[in-house]
Parts: sequence; C-alpha cells; structure tokens
Amino acid sequence: MWECDSLRQPLGAVKRMGGARQRTGRVTVAWMRTGISVAEARALVLAEAQPLAAETVPAESALGRVLAQTVRAPRTLPPADCSAMDGYALRAADLARASAAAPVELAVVYEVAAGGRGDVPLKAGEAARIFTGAPLPPGADTVVRQEQAQAQAARVRIAIHPKRGDSVRRAGEELRAGEVALEPGVKLSAAALGLLASLGRTQVAVHRRPRVALLSSGDELVEPDAAITDGRIVASNAYALAAQCSDCGAESFNLGIARDTPAELEALLRAGLSADLLISSAGVSVGDHDHVRPVLEKLGCRLRFWGVNMKPGYPLAFGRFEPPPGPLVFALPGNPVSALVCFEQFVRPVLLRLAGRHTTERPLLRVTLSETLRKVAGRMHFVRVRLRREAGRVFATPTCNQSSGVQRSMVLAQGLLVFDAEATELAAGSEAQVQLLDLDFLSGACW
Amino acid sequence: MWECDSLRQPLGAVKRMGGARQRTGRVTVAWMRTGISVAEARALVLAEAQPLAAETVPAESALGRVLAQTVRAPRTLPPADCSAMDGYALRAADLARASAAAPVELAVVYEVAAGGRGDVPLKAGEAARIFTGAPLPPGADTVVRQEQAQAQAARVRIAIHPKRGDSVRRAGEELRAGEVALEPGVKLSAAALGLLASLGRTQVAVHRRPRVALLSSGDELVEPDAAITDGRIVASNAYALAAQCSDCGAESFNLGIARDTPAELEALLRAGLSADLLISSAGVSVGDHDHVRPVLEKLGCRLRFWGVNMKPGYPLAFGRFEPPPGPLVFALPGNPVSALVCFEQFVRPVLLRLAGRHTTERPLLRVTLSETLRKVAGRMHFVRVRLRREAGRVFATPTCNQSSGVQRSMVLAQGLLVFDAEATELAAGSEAQVQLLDLDFLSGACW
Repeated sequence: MWECDSLRQPLGAVKRMGGARQRTGRVTVAWMRTGISVAEARALVLAEAQPLAAETVPAESALGRVLAQTVRAPRTLPPADCSAMDGYALRAADLARASAAAPVELAVVYEVAAGGRGDVPLKAGEAARIFTGAPLPPGADTVVRQEQAQAQAARVRIAIHPKRGDSVRRAGEELRAGEVALEPGVKLSAAALGLLASLGRTQVAVHRRPRVALLSSGDELVEPDAAITDGRIVASNAYALAAQCSDCGAESFNLGIARDTPAELEALLRAGLSADLLISSAGVSVGDHDHVRPVLEKLGCRLRFWGVNMKPGYPLAFGRFEPPPGPLVFALPGNPVSALVCFEQFVRPVLLRLAGRHTTERPLLRVTLSETLRKVAGRMHFVRVRLRREAGRVFATPTCNQSSGVQRSMVLAQGLLVFDAEATELAAGSEAQVQLLDLDFLSGACW
Repeated sequence: MWECDSLRQPLGAVKRMGGARQRTGRVTVAWMRTGISVAEARALVLAEAQPLAAETVPAESALGRVLAQTVRAPRTLPPADCSAMDGYALRAADLARASAAAPVELAVVYEVAAGGRGDVPLKAGEAARIFTGAPLPPGADTVVRQEQAQAQAARVRIAIHPKRGDSVRRAGEELRAGEVALEPGVKLSAAALGLLASLGRTQVAVHRRPRVALLSSGDELVEPDAAITDGRIVASNAYALAAQCSDCGAESFNLGIARDTPAELEALLRAGLSADLLISSAGVSVGDHDHVRPVLEKLGCRLRFWGVNMKPGYPLAFGRFEPPPGPLVFALPGNPVSALVCFEQFVRPVLLRLAGRHTTERPLLRVTLSETLRKVAGRMHFVRVRLRREAGRVFATPTCNQSSGVQRSMVLAQGLLVFDAEATELAAGSEAQVQLLDLDFLSGACW
C-alpha cells in the first residue's frame, strides 16, 4: 500500500497537500493531493494526457488509429462521368417518346467496358453497351439498365423514357481534386481505409500508439510458469493490465518483477523510462516495506495525487516524470480487482487520449438493482455486476464475491455499477448507472 | 454484377430455384435461391457457420479469443487463509472487551511479510504484524487494519473489537483445487487472462481465428500504389474488407487482382482454397464478362443463393466449396459501399460465429428520423446515417450522397438505418432502427 509519510493520518482527514511545496522527510513533494474523489482524479489524469506525436505508418495497419493529418484527394473521383449500372449509354432526348406501347430502337455502335474508353461521340439514335464504372462516351448523357432494355444483334429496344442523367455517376461525385477527404482527428474505420486506398494513399500519419511499461513489485511474486510454493503469488496483474492496454490500442512491455529493494526497483523503473506511461503494480500492498515511491521520486517523478476515495482501488497514485515529456506514472494497488478497476477509471481514458481519441468513457447503462446494496459513506464503490434484460429493463446483480482479491468477480462482471461516494444504500428496484464493460451485452436489443 | 443464366428475368420474379437440382446451360446448380430477403440470407449464411476447431496459443495473445476448453484450478486459491490488509493478525477473542475507553494491548511477537510464513502459533494476548496477502499465522483468526491500531515498540494498542474473520481472505475464496475457473465459450477478457496467469496457465485452447482470402476481379483494377490512368480504379475493396476482417478478429490475406479471364481467376481462387472463407469482390459489376461464377463452380463451389433484396448490395452470392470443410464463399458486389454493407450484414456474423462468438449482431439504436425518406417497395435499404443526441432522443440524418459508389457516405456513417423492404416512406419525426457501427457514439450518455 502506498503510504504518504507526512500524512500518516486517518483517511479522508487530509484533503489537500500542496498549493506550495512541502518537505517530507525524504523528498520535495509539490501539489500532491490525497483522498480525492474519483471525478477529481479523473480530471487530474486527463489534464496530463495530450495526444502523442504523429508517425507515418502503412495504411493497411492503421485501423482504429487516429489521423494526424489532413488527407486531400490528389485527383477527382470519379475522374469523368461514368456508368452506375450495366446497360446502355445513350441520349435521353432519343427516348423522349418511348413507352411500352411505342418502344424506341437504337443502334448499338460499340461497347465500353469498365477500364475501357468510348472516344467516338454517340450520334442521335445511337447507344453504346456500357458496364458499371466505365466512362460515359461523348454525346451520351444517360444510362438505361440492361434489365430495362431488350438487345437484339446490334440494336437495343427500350420502352421507357429515362430522366437525363439517370444511372450516371458524375465526375467528382466522391471527391474533387484538392478536396479534403479526411480530417485530422478521425478514427480510421474500414471504410476510411478503403477511401485512402482509392486515393492511392498507402502511408498515413496517425498519432503514435501509447507504449506502456508494466512493473510488478513484491518479494512474494513469481511469473505464471514458476513453481508456486508457500505464500508465492503469480504476478498476474501484469498480464491482465497488458491485455487491458492492448484492448485500448496501446502497446505494452513487461519490465518483470522487482524485489522489494531500492536498487532492484530503480533498475527496472529506469528500464521503463522510455515508455509513454509506466504502471507499477504492487503484488500486494507493501505498507512499511514500500520502496516504490522514494525510488520514483529519486528518478524525477512528481506525484500529483495519492489515494482516491473509491473501493476497490483506494491506494492509487499518479504522477509524471519531469521535465516533460517524461512518462506518466500510475502506481496501482496490488489486489487484482483493484488494479483492473483503477485501470478502467483512469488509465484507459489516459491511453485513449494519448492515442488521439476524443471519447474516453465507457457507455453507461441505466439499470434496476435486483438486490439492495449498502455501504458506509465516503468512498465511491464500483460494484461488479451481471446484467439481464427483462421486460424492457436491464437488471443488475452483483457477482458472487465482491472482495477485491477475488478475480472471478471481475471475470464475471459485465459492468461496474457506480455506487456514489456519499450514498449508503441502493434499494432493490431502484435505478443506478453501470459502466458497461461487455459491449456484447448490447447485441440483440434496441436501445 | 452476378447474373444467373437461367434466370435472366426481372428482379423479384423468381424467388426460388431449387428444391430439386436444375441444369443451367453450364453447370448443375442445386438449391440455389435468388432474390431472397435479408433475414433469409442471414439465416442461410449462419446455418453454414460452425465454430472452427481449437488451437493452443499463448495466453498472452488470447485476448478476445473464445475459450475451447474447460479450465480448472490446479490448486486452491488462496492456498491458505491470508490477510486482506496490512495490519495485525490476532485472536478476536482477545479484543472482546476493547473499546475507545478501554483499548487492549497485545504483544507483537513477530512479523509475517507477504510471501513469508508465520509458523509459530500465536498465543492468547499475542499479535503478529502482517501484510496483505501473507498467510495467517496459526492461532490467529482475524486481522485488524493498521489504521485502527497504534503500534509502540513490540506492542500494539487496539480500541475496537473486530468480528472474527474480519480482513481475512479464506483459503479457496477464489477457487478450490479442481473447481472450474473458466467454461468453454467464454470470450477471454483482460480479467480472465489475469485469472489464467494466477492459475499458472500460460497456454490455452481457443477457437481458431478465421482466415479469409480476399480476391478482387476486374480488368480495370489496379493496386493503390499504381499510376491511375484513364478508367483505372483502385481495388480498394480488398483494403476495406481486410480492415473489416481484422475488426472482427479474423486474419486475411490478399490474393490480388484477377483479370477477367477464367484462367487467371482459377489460379487465384485456387490459392484461396486453404482459407476458411473466400471473398471475391468485383471491381465493378461484370455483367456479360462474368467469369467468377463458372470458375467457382468448376472448383467445387456450390452456390446457396444469389441476389438479396437489399440496397445497397443486391448482387451478392454465397456458397461453399464441397465437400466440407471447403471454404465458405461470398461474392460481394464491387461498389465499395455495397461491399462494406454486405460484409456488415452477412460476413461479419459468419466470422464471429466461426471464431466461436455467441453474439454476432451490432447493437440497434432507436432513432428519430430528421428527414423524410422514400423508396420503392421490394428491397430493404440500409441508409448510411449520422447520429445526434438531443433532448433524450437520437436523431438520424442520412449522409450526403447515398450512391453506392460514394465511399464517403460509409466513411461518415455512424450507423445503418434499416428501411424495411416493403415500406415506402419513413416520415420525418418517426422512429426507426439503426445498426450502430460507431460504438464511440454511446460514450457520454446513459442508455
């Protein structure tokens, strides 16, 4: 657990430490706050997160990345009027009197395939066989679909009078040369990548993916392939957090497990300084044995806050290595559920913002409580819930065991129910909000 | 465009061809249906899609994959009763009379760090300093948090009387040895990967990712890095479709562009037969020049349907190479918007099902039309719309140009508004359903 030396006081008693620099026994701490609300903490972390610089990458690997440049059309698309259908290019005026009773026959003088050209101007009474995407021959102004035409040898009989321009795609219908195709800030979808390909763009500037360094610390921790002997615990948080990073488009690397000695912590933390964001997770809270904070501070990290009034997840610290652009740092609690919930509330929004994304929040669902929840006032609770649709409502039921040590409560959770800090009861049947983790839950219903 | 030789009739006139084998001019066609509804087509494609076989992969790369085995706990977690807090392990009975007025002092006889052991039984009147995750020493039954204790030299003073078992995590609270941790069919979340790591599982059996072969066909097509000369079109669909595949967890490889000759088509299609799913996309509709279908059939593909009553996207064909497990085949229309919309309606659900996913549909949103839409009856329209939240409602507005050749209509679309086949008008202010493509739209509101 993160301890704050000069603040070894009951939780909640000290709301602010800063406004001026204060000296603790060991280091200078400026502006560090403690025991703050979830909303304050979220505002503080987002204030530090600016989109990362651009990098140029192959368009093929840019799905989901955020564009960091303006893309203009290098040429007009389509470059000339062309057919939107397989059929016959002709002059609408020739069919002015055509009807079912009096079909009009035109001479089919040539054929224009897609990719072909029709340079010889059509004269009155003439048509050209044409295929979708093929340029309209000079003289033609309209296309009649083949289903509406009867072909016979070199003639075609048509019993309708189309509007001038029917089934013709106009030059520049998609884009004119120089026109803006995609604006900076756009998240690149499959359709956008198709458009880029159409424009001949194979490289594109996007905001860099955040790189995250993951550090576990604790003498009791081992890697998952190790023999588990008495009291050993797998450093599983690094694996769950890596997956969470990947889920929001960030890359991560695992610095490994640091024993609880300043030298080992310093060596591993130094290896993470090249990252955009450094996450340390204590295997368990380390209380008196805590060396992470002094080592962070020795390396130039200035903590912004420690301790957020939430459960699970109180012992969370956030800071930044200075001078900028040193990495941001989150020191997450060691309990697996606490670490995952803290990631959801604070790290995920920061990573999305670093990647240039505009929206950083999970969707919220309005739910009905299936059972009464109680707690003491003071901390916002994030209750892991299962969700069920019934009679037009969504019912939320807490997962089995809400202990922050029980990972299965998070494995089973489809969402996090927000139980406000000052509230003490949410009665069965009342409404609440859930941060939706399992987007598949939305499938199969209309919202 | 796909043509059906024996069925060159007005659309909609022939609803079924099959029930018995019929001979066309070229090949035997069995059970091929044409001009079917979107719902029928969806049922037909899903009927052919079974989850792929399992493969064993590193757990670290299994995020989002669907588990294909039962995972049991190899050992009890936690293996013994342990502390949930930093504090003091003790016997609750010793504090039965403790209060603020009469605190009780206990002798701190040793310390148990996380990863340590406390083998010497605690006697009455004794406590052990303990840290989160550390095993409870014999004799102790309760932990008092350090915030509720005053330590002085080798003694600790406590002014509360805890319940027996407070702040203790019971052995097996997470899982007992042999208990099921994860069931087959679970989509592996970050939390599930954390649990797997805790169990020491580094390899896990999941359903294989679908492999998709992408083929473009058309004499007019070029790759995006080519010089665009008269009438040439970039084979952009392969790039957009590859991104769509990736977006639903499938792998794809690009077979390249086949010229419109049977020999070239056959060579490229053969190269795609190792895939689980083969997608051909005509650069433009090929009408009389169509060689794709006879080549597919020559190679053993049996078409299930051709032509779905939808817009964009009518000329869609679906089949399967036989005998099973030959790849499934989608022949998508060449218009970029048509191809993307067909992928959304049919290919995406199939790929998700192949990957073992249970939910295959996009979330639906109830929207209010901001303008009146009209069409002729007969085909379901998928109208590309922008979405806007206002006064508790979501308003849908069609994107600029709904031509199926205009890719920007799909780039800008946040959803596809479903305009039922037989409907002819959706009045401004009326309600409709939208298939939500842009899940970020859900952010920042409560649903």
